[in-house]
Amino acid sequence: MMNRKLRMGMVGGGTDAFIGAIHRLAAFMDNQIELVCGCFSVNPEISKESGQLYYLPEHRVYDTYQEMFEKEAKLPEGERMDFVSIVTPNFVHFAPAMMALDNGFHVVLDKPITFTLDEALKLKEKLDETGLTFALTHTYSGYPAVKQAKHMVSEGRLGQIRKILVEYPQGWLSSKVEDAGNAQASWRTDPKRSGKAGCMGDIGTHAHQLTEYISGLRVTEICADLNVFVPNRLLDDDGSAFLRFNNGAKGVLTATQIAAGEENAIKIRVYGEKGGLEWNQHEPNTLLLKWSDQPAQLLRTGTNLDAPGALHNTRTPGGHPEGYLEAFANIYRNFALTVRAKANGEQPTPEMLDFPGVEDGIRGMQFIDTVVSAGYNDDVKWVKFGETID
Amino acid sequence: MMNRKLRMGMVGGGTDAFIGAIHRLAAFMDNQIELVCGCFSVNPEISKESGQLYYLPEHRVYDTYQEMFEKEAKLPEGERMDFVSIVTPNFVHFAPAMMALDNGFHVVLDKPITFTLDEALKLKEKLDETGLTFALTHTYSGYPAVKQAKHMVSEGRLGQIRKILVEYPQGWLSSKVEDAGNAQASWRTDPKRSGKAGCMGDIGTHAHQLTEYISGLRVTEICADLNVFVPNRLLDDDGSAFLRFNNGAKGVLTATQIAAGEENAIKIRVYGEKGGLEWNQHEPNTLLLKWSDQPAQLLRTGTNLDAPGALHNTRTPGGHPEGYLEAFANIYRNFALTVRAKANGEQPTPEMLDFPGVEDGIRGMQFIDTVVSAGYNDDVKWVKFGETID
Amino acid sequence: MMNRKLRMGMVGGGTDAFIGAIHRLAAFMDNQIELVCGCFSVNPEISKESGQLYYLPEHRVYDTYQEMFEKEAKLPEGERMDFVSIVTPNFVHFAPAMMALDNGFHVVLDKPITFTLDEALKLKEKLDETGLTFALTHTYSGYPAVKQAKHMVSEGRLGQIRKILVEYPQGWLSSKVEDAGNAQASWRTDPKRSGKAGCMGDIGTHAHQLTEYISGLRVTEICADLNVFVPNRLLDDDGSAFLRFNNGAKGVLTATQIAAGEENAIKIRVYGEKGGLEWNQHEPNTLLLKWSDQPAQLLRTGTNLDAPGALHNTRTPGGHPEGYLEAFANIYRNFALTVRAKANGEQPTPEMLDFPGVEDGIRGMQFIDTVVSAGYNDDVKWVKFGETID
Amino acid sequence: MMNRKLRMGMVGGGTDAFIGAIHRLAAFMDNQIELVCGCFSVNPEISKESGQLYYLPEHRVYDTYQEMFEKEAKLPEGERMDFVSIVTPNFVHFAPAMMALDNGFHVVLDKPITFTLDEALKLKEKLDETGLTFALTHTYSGYPAVKQAKHMVSEGRLGQIRKILVEYPQGWLSSKVEDAGNAQASWRTDPKRSGKAGCMGDIGTHAHQLTEYISGLRVTEICADLNVFVPNRLLDDDGSAFLRFNNGAKGVLTATQIAAGEENAIKIRVYGEKGGLEWNQHEPNTLLLKWSDQPAQLLRTGTNLDAPGALHNTRTPGGHPEGYLEAFANIYRNFALTVRAKANGEQPTPEMLDFPGVEDGIRGMQFIDTVVSAGYNDDVKWVKFGETID
Repeated sequence: MMNRKLRMGMVGGGTDAFIGAIHRLAAFMDNQIELVCGCFSVNPEISKESGQLYYLPEHRVYDTYQEMFEKEAKLPEGERMDFVSIVTPNFVHFAPAMMALDNGFHVVLDKPITFTLDEALKLKEKLDETGLTFALTHTYSGYPAVKQAKHMVSEGRLGQIRKILVEYPQGWLSSKVEDAGNAQASWRTDPKRSGKAGCMGDIGTHAHQLTEYISGLRVTEICADLNVFVPNRLLDDDGSAFLRFNNGAKGVLTATQIAAGEENAIKIRVYGEKGGLEWNQHEPNTLLLKWSDQPAQLLRTGTNLDAPGALHNTRTPGGHPEGYLEAFANIYRNFALTVRAKANGEQPTPEMLDFPGVEDGIRGMQFIDTVVSAGYNDDVKWVKFGETID
Repeated sequence: MMNRKLRMGMVGGGTDAFIGAIHRLAAFMDNQIELVCGCFSVNPEISKESGQLYYLPEHRVYDTYQEMFEKEAKLPEGERMDFVSIVTPNFVHFAPAMMALDNGFHVVLDKPITFTLDEALKLKEKLDETGLTFALTHTYSGYPAVKQAKHMVSEGRLGQIRKILVEYPQGWLSSKVEDAGNAQASWRTDPKRSGKAGCMGDIGTHAHQLTEYISGLRVTEICADLNVFVPNRLLDDDGSAFLRFNNGAKGVLTATQIAAGEENAIKIRVYGEKGGLEWNQHEPNTLLLKWSDQPAQLLRTGTNLDAPGALHNTRTPGGHPEGYLEAFANIYRNFALTVRAKANGEQPTPEMLDFPGVEDGIRGMQFIDTVVSAGYNDDVKWVKFGETID
Repeated sequence: MMNRKLRMGMVGGGTDAFIGAIHRLAAFMDNQIELVCGCFSVNPEISKESGQLYYLPEHRVYDTYQEMFEKEAKLPEGERMDFVSIVTPNFVHFAPAMMALDNGFHVVLDKPITFTLDEALKLKEKLDETGLTFALTHTYSGYPAVKQAKHMVSEGRLGQIRKILVEYPQGWLSSKVEDAGNAQASWRTDPKRSGKAGCMGDIGTHAHQLTEYISGLRVTEICADLNVFVPNRLLDDDGSAFLRFNNGAKGVLTATQIAAGEENAIKIRVYGEKGGLEWNQHEPNTLLLKWSDQPAQLLRTGTNLDAPGALHNTRTPGGHPEGYLEAFANIYRNFALTVRAKANGEQPTPEMLDFPGVEDGIRGMQFIDTVVSAGYNDDVKWVKFGETID
Repeated sequence: MMNRKLRMGMVGGGTDAFIGAIHRLAAFMDNQIELVCGCFSVNPEISKESGQLYYLPEHRVYDTYQEMFEKEAKLPEGERMDFVSIVTPNFVHFAPAMMALDNGFHVVLDKPITFTLDEALKLKEKLDETGLTFALTHTYSGYPAVKQAKHMVSEGRLGQIRKILVEYPQGWLSSKVEDAGNAQASWRTDPKRSGKAGCMGDIGTHAHQLTEYISGLRVTEICADLNVFVPNRLLDDDGSAFLRFNNGAKGVLTATQIAAGEENAIKIRVYGEKGGLEWNQHEPNTLLLKWSDQPAQLLRTGTNLDAPGALHNTRTPGGHPEGYLEAFANIYRNFALTVRAKANGEQPTPEMLDFPGVEDGIRGMQFIDTVVSAGYNDDVKWVKFGETID
């Protein structure tokens, strides 16, 4: 009977990194997870210093992730880590994830899941083999109001879905900051570390995942226009796509990193026959419902949300705003609850199981393949989802 | 020396019509224009009743517009109308406009300018011949904050423009209201009265015009996806387009009439190298400026707008909101000021001349041609602006 | 049978004045009123120039209002004005209004109604005697969403009213602009021209009137704190008041002209046992309803408002924002409809009669008396409405 | 050298409590604090069950707080708790806090600090004696944008402060939920457990603290009106106060729990000679700056905030909203950093020391005394801060 916090190891996430800190905040908040070990950087010095700041004993801070997995696997069950959180750049996702699984550790991975679709498919195979638990941190699907939206669509409250508008505008890559020492920009604009997509991989995948998550629909075809606005940048920093869905609905997805002055205003609008819904990360605790035949309604986290998934993922009373970290923490908490339930031979509830996984990762890689393939080709208009054209 | 109100006649705009009332409110507000005659309906009874309600003498209310133009032309100069406002469905734009010009009357016309591009081109020829003044009521370009936006872009305040997002979501055609006695819907969804486009002609043209107006750019190519969501409707009720502009900028235009619960939320965002601007009709007196290197700013009509065109078109002090009718009235007022200046042998100022005209109308018809041509073709991705493909 | 536009004269409102222009825009918009004469300034030159710009014949532009009333009264009925709009500073309200009534003219008056309560009471007597029609331009009660609010409160939709928060923050008097040539500031801060109150007379009265209009309640006692923040100013430029209402409800009224950076953000919130409503001039077409037991709702002008008074006073379809001028015009239109109905021996409808009148004016003067009396006295906490203390 | 997480004990905060959960989320998030023991309920069964769910060993879960302090004090330094977090109803604040201090433990306390002012003063004495560290969880002062506001005021960016409007509207006590089994309502409306104030103690103190925190001013006199709207309730559920500040500024404070439909919309506006600022918990990452002479600006957490205190207390990049829990966590984190710095013989930085303490607690108790004393007295208008009248 597992009645203790889960023990987390970490690959990446040194004190010089941004997303690693977010992962830790999210993991610790609910008192379900403790950090027990890590390889926080390719630079052993940074790794060591980071481990100290995270209050780890020296011998649980490793120089390489290989060393970590090997040594942790040999520790007694009462001591060794339960799962690893991998928060490295995209090109260092696959290998550590595979090795972690091979050594019996569950995995939390930052998105996009891997460098290539092929790797993502192999990861799925490995997960099927091992039966281990896997989470992908598509954070936005962790917000209670987003879960409410998904619930209302699935219950048919809006009627048949016709049109989805999703956008993720950022402005931070409006100039060539990757040449000015911005580490975040540096790897994200480098095809060797980021993969074949820039903006579409970094944030377009979030917009795509959110769309399929809320609507329950699947994109079947894409018509896209990708752009590189900043001279000498090697990957797309802007793009838009028309989407066709498996129920006949249509969508427009816009992701850009050159919308000067924008922060992280991911926003989605879903319209059905009877009404529409709107959610925007800048006011994440409000779900705006619009109706053809009655006044618009403002559903508020902690006050009016009634979907089981929304209630399960809410921590504060209405009007005390929850934010990005709580949405992030919902993924970690549900992952942890699922791991614990399975460890105890229990069936995780649907609410526990509601976190992004390997299927989201594969869809994300297919999205990247498709949108990149379609986005630079002036001759072919529509590309089937998951396919590539020359 | 013309020192009196301009005398307006009207074609259409009976008491059973919607847009005619808007035109009159806009025309009268500034005390520059008075209604002197009209043919308000194809139904002479309605025309007569309407004339009474508009306080016209019986003999200035006509059964047909042909009769009106003929008889008015014969009235003495001190009495006859100066210009006609034509507010009929699209298919009754061209003929009365041409006849008015032939009889020496200036013309105000509702958009889209004509039924076909060919008609628009002929109208332009006629205008060139006659030297008469012509206004097209693309209302949204009449808002002071929109004029401020145009000014700031033209001054390079945002840097080189890269990306434009424009949208016009409505929801009123979410069901088949044209079969339920909605007169507005009836002609707008009928290709014989509306033309080859539905949604794109009705509101897409507004989005297009606003885009070119603010940015000063011209669309050169369009990739589009048009849809008919409501079964058995004959024209598009939804659509989106990727835009390429003559300076290399890119855009996304979305216009839809099946976004259930939406009103008239036309919104535009323009991003340049240094910053972006955002304007939304739902809060039309705010121009939101976003910057890469400083906090966002809220410019407010009557308070902070400083563009000559914005100041010229503002009536109330800051915080006393101006609305749609004032934007509309700006077109009428500037049209009237221009007509008067010309009548008096004066050169109208740039602020007076700042109202949409025949060139906007031609661009609009070209937009319709292009977007319809591109919007249903799955094989051709990009269509040059003004061209059509099979 | 009166079947023509009403003929308006004007006292004040020369080309150098602000509020006169607003009155004219409001009066003309609906084609129910035409300007036929005026005495637009104490300066006959300005009056003459103004008359020309308003397209009046020279002989209908008068040097004094006395001359105007006398001469107009002698014109034949088919020619002379029907009513006068008086838009002068407060100290020139009473005399022209009385003289107009004595000469048989209906009156529209800017607020506050008079210089003293005593004058207001005399005006009421005169109105009772003459049976003429009188309107006071408390503009904010002209908004459709405000009329909807009143209607919902009166129907008990919010339950018994408990608490009202009303505020009118402005910032334009944050510095001593009256010494810097600002004509608007000059008379408003001068007790000889404005009366015993500054801020409370200018905008506090609006807040008070809006409160009683929407709630249907009457203030019975006031506890107040008035301030003069700008050195050497002679009248209050800021103040707040606790209100007690005749049903036991409580209120807080804040009016200030030194809230630097604020425009005209008059806002009211009314809470009852079951729910609350919120209206803000900065987004005047939205009425926000909040409920204890269901999600908040956004009622929108032209879309969801269903009160007869709201529908009667709406000109544009939902999402095409109406503004301050339309609210103002609603007062003029209803005044005109009432005058015409009475002239034709008809009973004006409740919707026609729904414009502020002499009772609002008297309540306003009592409000000023009470709030000024209470606002500087540190010893007496509560003052009965309409009373003054030393 | 303390190089480890701080060890926290807890009084109150069982699984049936609301605010205890919030404290734990806030304490754990930053990996600086671990829970090691607790007495989570007056009911030992609940305490035990809670301890299990928080993953504590059985012997560190105590039946009474007295037992906890005694036994923990005897544990070796490497094991015993460092501080206690007390999250009980108001009437159980003083005794455990005193006992904790007597046993050498630092203290975090929920607000209001104690049941009476006298207790608060004794607590201060004890703190002075012991030199231990004390934090009071006035959460709202933990928001980065609030710290930015304080910084800008202190730097004189708004000029001399003139007017402050602060409000905290809630609606959850609109009906007598304390009789319907709502445990939160039950003790808050009970004078024996809550103290002499209801609404003013629960949320009025927050509004007061936020006001003094941001402005740096001190309230010197209060004129108040307190109300009990719900029949048979024993404490105020609504109230408003005029405030006089030590620099001559004026304020209006409104706190209500019967504003039906409101959540926790605490909002503050501060106006100086040059400009104003506005902050609202419902959009806590935006600080709105309004200026007399330039457009309003939107400062955003993570993007434009530059105050050292704002930067120190921000965890996520701009546009990834932080919320209530992060604000709460800022208090815990700074408390922990201060304790550790002192333990290590270092001087805590000003940013570390920026959390509410015993002085805020005393001011809060004085506020309660004053506002209650003034709020029911119709004869005395102004009461000096900290005084009471009969």
